[in-house]
Amino acid sequence: MHEPNILESNVRSYSRSFPEKFNKAYGAKLYAANGKAYIDFLSGAGALNYGHNNPILKKSLLEYIKNDGVTHSLDMSTSAKDNFIKIFNDFILAPRNMKYRLQFTGPTGTNAVEAAIKTAMLATGRSRMFSFTNSFHGMTLGSLQLTANKYYRDGLKLSNSFNTFMPYDGYINNSIGYLEKLLQDPASGVDIPAGIIVETIQGEGGVNTASKEWLQALQQLCKKHGILFIIDDIQVGCGRTGTFFSFEDYKLDPDIIVLSKSLSGYGLPMAIVLLKEQHDIWEPGQHNGTFRGNNLAFITASQAINTYWKTSDFELETKNKSIFFFRAINEVIQTLNLQELISVKGRGMIAGLSFKFENLANEVSKEAFLRGLIIETCGPKNNVLKLLPPINTANTLLAQGCEILSESIKAVLMKNNVRKIA
Amino acid sequence: MHEPNILESNVRSYSRSFPEKFNKAYGAKLYAANGKAYIDFLSGAGALNYGHNNPILKKSLLEYIKNDGVTHSLDMSTSAKDNFIKIFNDFILAPRNMKYRLQFTGPTGTNAVEAAIKTAMLATGRSRMFSFTNSFHGMTLGSLQLTANKYYRDGLKLSNSFNTFMPYDGYINNSIGYLEKLLQDPASGVDIPAGIIVETIQGEGGVNTASKEWLQALQQLCKKHGILFIIDDIQVGCGRTGTFFSFEDYKLDPDIIVLSKSLSGYGLPMAIVLLKEQHDIWEPGQHNGTFRGNNLAFITASQAINTYWKTSDFELETKNKSIFFFRAINEVIQTLNLQELISVKGRGMIAGLSFKFENLANEVSKEAFLRGLIIETCGPKNNVLKLLPPINTANTLLAQGCEILSESIKAVLMKNNVRKIA
Amino acid sequence: MHEPNILESNVRSYSRSFPEKFNKAYGAKLYAANGKAYIDFLSGAGALNYGHNNPILKKSLLEYIKNDGVTHSLDMSTSAKDNFIKIFNDFILAPRNMKYRLQFTGPTGTNAVEAAIKTAMLATGRSRMFSFTNSFHGMTLGSLQLTANKYYRDGLKLSNSFNTFMPYDGYINNSIGYLEKLLQDPASGVDIPAGIIVETIQGEGGVNTASKEWLQALQQLCKKHGILFIIDDIQVGCGRTGTFFSFEDYKLDPDIIVLSKSLSGYGLPMAIVLLKEQHDIWEPGQHNGTFRGNNLAFITASQAINTYWKTSDFELETKNKSIFFFRAINEVIQTLNLQELISVKGRGMIAGLSFKFENLANEVSKEAFLRGLIIETCGPKNNVLKLLPPINTANTLLAQGCEILSESIKAVLMKNNVRKIA
Amino acid sequence: MHEPNILESNVRSYSRSFPEKFNKAYGAKLYAANGKAYIDFLSGAGALNYGHNNPILKKSLLEYIKNDGVTHSLDMSTSAKDNFIKIFNDFILAPRNMKYRLQFTGPTGTNAVEAAIKTAMLATGRSRMFSFTNSFHGMTLGSLQLTANKYYRDGLKLSNSFNTFMPYDGYINNSIGYLEKLLQDPASGVDIPAGIIVETIQGEGGVNTASKEWLQALQQLCKKHGILFIIDDIQVGCGRTGTFFSFEDYKLDPDIIVLSKSLSGYGLPMAIVLLKEQHDIWEPGQHNGTFRGNNLAFITASQAINTYWKTSDFELETKNKSIFFFRAINEVIQTLNLQELISVKGRGMIAGLSFKFENLANEVSKEAFLRGLIIETCGPKNNVLKLLPPINTANTLLAQGCEILSESIKAVLMKNNVRKIA
Repeated sequence: MHEPNILESNVRSYSRSFPEKFNKAYGAKLYAANGKAYIDFLSGAGALNYGHNNPILKKSLLEYIKNDGVTHSLDMSTSAKDNFIKIFNDFILAPRNMKYRLQFTGPTGTNAVEAAIKTAMLATGRSRMFSFTNSFHGMTLGSLQLTANKYYRDGLKLSNSFNTFMPYDGYINNSIGYLEKLLQDPASGVDIPAGIIVETIQGEGGVNTASKEWLQALQQLCKKHGILFIIDDIQVGCGRTGTFFSFEDYKLDPDIIVLSKSLSGYGLPMAIVLLKEQHDIWEPGQHNGTFRGNNLAFITASQAINTYWKTSDFELETKNKSIFFFRAINEVIQTLNLQELISVKGRGMIAGLSFKFENLANEVSKEAFLRGLIIETCGPKNNVLKLLPPINTANTLLAQGCEILSESIKAVLMKNNVRKIA
Repeated sequence: MHEPNILESNVRSYSRSFPEKFNKAYGAKLYAANGKAYIDFLSGAGALNYGHNNPILKKSLLEYIKNDGVTHSLDMSTSAKDNFIKIFNDFILAPRNMKYRLQFTGPTGTNAVEAAIKTAMLATGRSRMFSFTNSFHGMTLGSLQLTANKYYRDGLKLSNSFNTFMPYDGYINNSIGYLEKLLQDPASGVDIPAGIIVETIQGEGGVNTASKEWLQALQQLCKKHGILFIIDDIQVGCGRTGTFFSFEDYKLDPDIIVLSKSLSGYGLPMAIVLLKEQHDIWEPGQHNGTFRGNNLAFITASQAINTYWKTSDFELETKNKSIFFFRAINEVIQTLNLQELISVKGRGMIAGLSFKFENLANEVSKEAFLRGLIIETCGPKNNVLKLLPPINTANTLLAQGCEILSESIKAVLMKNNVRKIA
Repeated sequence: MHEPNILESNVRSYSRSFPEKFNKAYGAKLYAANGKAYIDFLSGAGALNYGHNNPILKKSLLEYIKNDGVTHSLDMSTSAKDNFIKIFNDFILAPRNMKYRLQFTGPTGTNAVEAAIKTAMLATGRSRMFSFTNSFHGMTLGSLQLTANKYYRDGLKLSNSFNTFMPYDGYINNSIGYLEKLLQDPASGVDIPAGIIVETIQGEGGVNTASKEWLQALQQLCKKHGILFIIDDIQVGCGRTGTFFSFEDYKLDPDIIVLSKSLSGYGLPMAIVLLKEQHDIWEPGQHNGTFRGNNLAFITASQAINTYWKTSDFELETKNKSIFFFRAINEVIQTLNLQELISVKGRGMIAGLSFKFENLANEVSKEAFLRGLIIETCGPKNNVLKLLPPINTANTLLAQGCEILSESIKAVLMKNNVRKIA
Repeated sequence: MHEPNILESNVRSYSRSFPEKFNKAYGAKLYAANGKAYIDFLSGAGALNYGHNNPILKKSLLEYIKNDGVTHSLDMSTSAKDNFIKIFNDFILAPRNMKYRLQFTGPTGTNAVEAAIKTAMLATGRSRMFSFTNSFHGMTLGSLQLTANKYYRDGLKLSNSFNTFMPYDGYINNSIGYLEKLLQDPASGVDIPAGIIVETIQGEGGVNTASKEWLQALQQLCKKHGILFIIDDIQVGCGRTGTFFSFEDYKLDPDIIVLSKSLSGYGLPMAIVLLKEQHDIWEPGQHNGTFRGNNLAFITASQAINTYWKTSDFELETKNKSIFFFRAINEVIQTLNLQELISVKGRGMIAGLSFKFENLANEVSKEAFLRGLIIETCGPKNNVLKLLPPINTANTLLAQGCEILSESIKAVLMKNNVRKIA
């Protein structure tokens, strides 16, 4: 087993979960230095929707570098950036009848979330935010206030000064009704926030999906109270659910959308905030950063859109693949007769297997890794296996992954005598 | 003049200061789409110490991409990462007798600063920080609290909840004495902080340099009170001052060092926190992030160290170049007989020209751009021209840049009849 | 109509609601300088449970002053204080099998609440609090964070840094279930607080009463999570509900109890915090204050206990009076056939008449004042008339007050043609 | 030795320093239950400027109570209150050409300070405050942020969210210059505050006096930046320095003045905020409180003004007494030849004896108590003896107190062999 470098901080995590030194990657596979191949159902936590080192994107990238295209230019205009803006508008925004300005922030999701928080505060003149139970929005101190899991805050003596956590869809009965009551009651103690930020599917939180109706009601509540409705589409945007944005089928019209992870399509750091023109209250450079224009990412992001999003083919393909994927997952569970032990969540190409008993999910993840499948756990108690393969993974490989999953579950159940427990 | 894309948020800034669409870059030069060449005395605000698209680094990068080396892998172990850690330790840390753990954070300076803040708080159990007047540490809400210029906070109704600004070297007489008095007095109102973060040269703040004695006294004060001494070497580390770290000649032993900008050597997003083993209190994944392992950056960063830092040649070269550079700058001022109007600050390959009257620096920057030189302003009132060429810029090009600078100053003075004003 | 003095700040309020200059007071009556008498159903917002200038207490007070008993002594030991502690323990605490330490704070409810907050934080090492929707706990900046009505915070750009508002009994279905879920879920975003502070009846909030079951479940939840269970009995303690503490019939065992208002029995400023010995973590003088020993208040408080709480007579009397009081109130409503327009809340000697339509309650209050009855409104929209007569008001006077109330309601309904509206 | 009641919280403090049960008091003397008399150089920490149970005030008080004058009336108009406002305006404000509105807050200094903070924030729309090193402004969580001594905050994990401590007169060279630099520099990190609150003499902080020039410069700086200039005259107002306000000789024109302690003249809880009309931005009841109209205190406060402040006799008398007092103190030190060990601070009728070595002041306080003199220590390290006799103490009694002080110092020095140490 590969030992992570002793000089790396204790904060390292995936190198512990998947103790192997990798040196090559292609499509839905990662290859260890020792030659062993792994099917990747993690996909860089959603950063590799089109697979590792996608050959079409790679070609454009190599060419650009070879020709000494501008690599770093702060936020100056470059051909790469101008082209990206044009392509993003022409093939993503315009066809969906969406009108947004693009804000290029530091190239990480958390940085874009921070910009979204500031935008909401500056645009409304208010000072508070709502996020939801089991949400994840990042690790910098602003985003961290929006992130629910106390694991990330433990030991930090920082007061949660501007955010209030509200119950997500299904957390209590009629959570929107509760929010509405709080906002209408001048003595609820809860001030009307600048913005409400929500994930349509809570990836880290346990693959919890919000319903169309709930999201629509949330948006309506925002509009009514002049609250900026912010969708954090970092993990499930860029095609993960089938459509480019995760909420396209829900007729939502968010004030702000945050994208990152798979935006560059090649795993390169990139993040943007989409904001309505009327909320674009920024002064020049008021939210700056050295890497807010990653030109290499612009090149691959443009190529990704050109390749996958000019027509609806890819979208249809993904929707079909999703059906295949969930059928395969459900088959695993039914064949093993585990419907009482494991429930399936998710949509599109993100699936969650929620285990009734704690620890099992972690053990399955370990077993699967030994068998050549990379798959991580999530949820407040890490009892949910999160399946996140590249969205263009071949069905045969999806099936193969599910087969390994099945065997791993069997092995873990046997080891734990779970039948008897259950 | 190039108009920045109307779809980009108002927050865009350098595309306003330097209204041109760039499409190629090489060494100390940026090339516009229209073919015009510019000498780059901005260097990505310090992210391009070895020049644009450095050919040696480029070669390694192309090869790695071509061979499908892992591009994105969260914080898993990869050959690229392991190799970087080894090279960084062998050629940067070990020869300087420095022992630090490496924390890979989201690949931006501000993210690394946020990690440093958290480390200080977790390691000491305390909840407050000190930063300094005119400091700049980033834009996410934690780093923003450490950043002095109110421009970045204007309109945000956020209380500055954990940071106190202290006077930087020269801001008042005996600022260390004042700090010491505050820390020793149980009724000063000022609690002993978890950490003190300082730039040895305040880049954004106006090219203010702290003296060796002041920094040593600050470190001593930190040690005495169990405060983590944190050096933000983002802008002036990685060789900018001649040595790899900006404080090497000062016999300092910081608890935490933050690096980013030129770390990858190629303008690729990358950031690390160096921390002493005893402060490495992190739980696995407690500060996570999708792009905390940018393998392409590991490749170029390793190559940069291999190329420039294995021997002391580059360091010596830079020191000589610095002498040439400052001589050229001083010549400009003396020739124009402007010693009363402009004072020169800085060391190594960062220089600041501080103008007695506001606005002049901005006008000179604009004039210089028209004449083919990219140079930005800094300082609380933007009255300091900051000269930040790639540190390996040829002397002839440095001279050429200074020549343009001279002409630009002349033009602006003439336009403003400054002789008469002064 | 009396005009309040123009030199008094705009913050004055009751002098606006009841525009009269008063100069004498006795029992349940206030007398204006012009001789007009008013029945007082406000009782100093609960500070005059035994009536104005209660003659038995007055006698002790005069004697003490005449004899040059210590008036002011900071928190030194005095005969008056020692005697109060003894009497309070012998006749209030001991017979109820309650063991508490007494903390004398600045002589206002809000000051005692602030001490309770600090105690909870110091005793648990935690930093957050829960209070409830529609709660009122005071105006100083700590208590203000616990107070729900935004009227008191409007315009203050202070972040609510340590308190979270939770739904009070009846605010949502199963609010305790929701709290329990939040506290058990490590990713709810809601940290386990140091303390939870609750009013058994929300006086300012609209005379909302919490049920025995809800309060018991809340206490159980506190015990389970090591949260200090704090009852703010400022408005409805000291006999208002019939028993000395408002929760005596509920078998509660709070960690902290806050008392003020009627504690001195004579309207003199006084406040105490009762805290369990194990939570008495204070260092000497760590929460100090000039007036934390109001000896005149000790004298009248001791006499009040001696007079009313040595036997159970007063308690029984009040319980009977409460039956009479609520019967009279309900008669008013039934006689006017207003069951659909007005609902009755409260218990003991605090009653709330909640009006379906806003403004009516305020108009009734004005009408009643013209007719010689002082009665204020409460609730988030001021649509609840709060009836708070001295608890020893003679039944004839209670009846007289209800008669005036009836006439006032009739007059207002007529003026507003409410029958038609309803 | 008297043991404080075991049922009283550990927070009790003066009952520890002065372990005696008192039961009577008159003028400058406190009498223990056992008959022992003590000279009182503590005066309720400044709450008893006219002595204990002043007979003239007592007479008015008894009469008012006897006649059933209104005791408690929230903030309704009463004859007692109207009369106080009139007398305060006619004999305190008008003759000094001062125009202020009166805000009656909860009857404690800290409550009035909280109101002042809110006023500053509401009137300026800003959110921050400045107070000074070694300041004391109270214990509620808002005032506590303004209070410098960490003893009062220890263990509370509350972020200091709105206050910044600035160096008091003499803390550093040219502290006003430093403040001015911070406020003028847009990148100092220090925002322009809503208000600056200052004590002209820091009582708790060690009897530190600010000079006329420093206070005038501070006021000028406030005016220049639109900052509310707030004087906390709680401890040294109401005649302590000779004049009614402590700053009368300094030609200051504060925006807000906070008074409490000796305002009632009889040790009764009372506090007011004086604020300029243009800052009176309050909504009715926006800062409320049950005891904000303590009518008994209005009676004695009015009588105190009538008695002592209608003419300048008392002021002249106090100034002469101050000369006598300081001469007596200095004689003690010179006679004992302790000029190197003890320095004298203060003015008017407040004096501080600052000991070079820690602990000595505490020991002297204990010795003095045994000898019948009550005198407390102050300062960050409790090394300052604070002499605060009633300002109308007879010279013979002052001399007698100084005699006891002299003996106590001698005894302590002998016990400690201080000559040798020094």
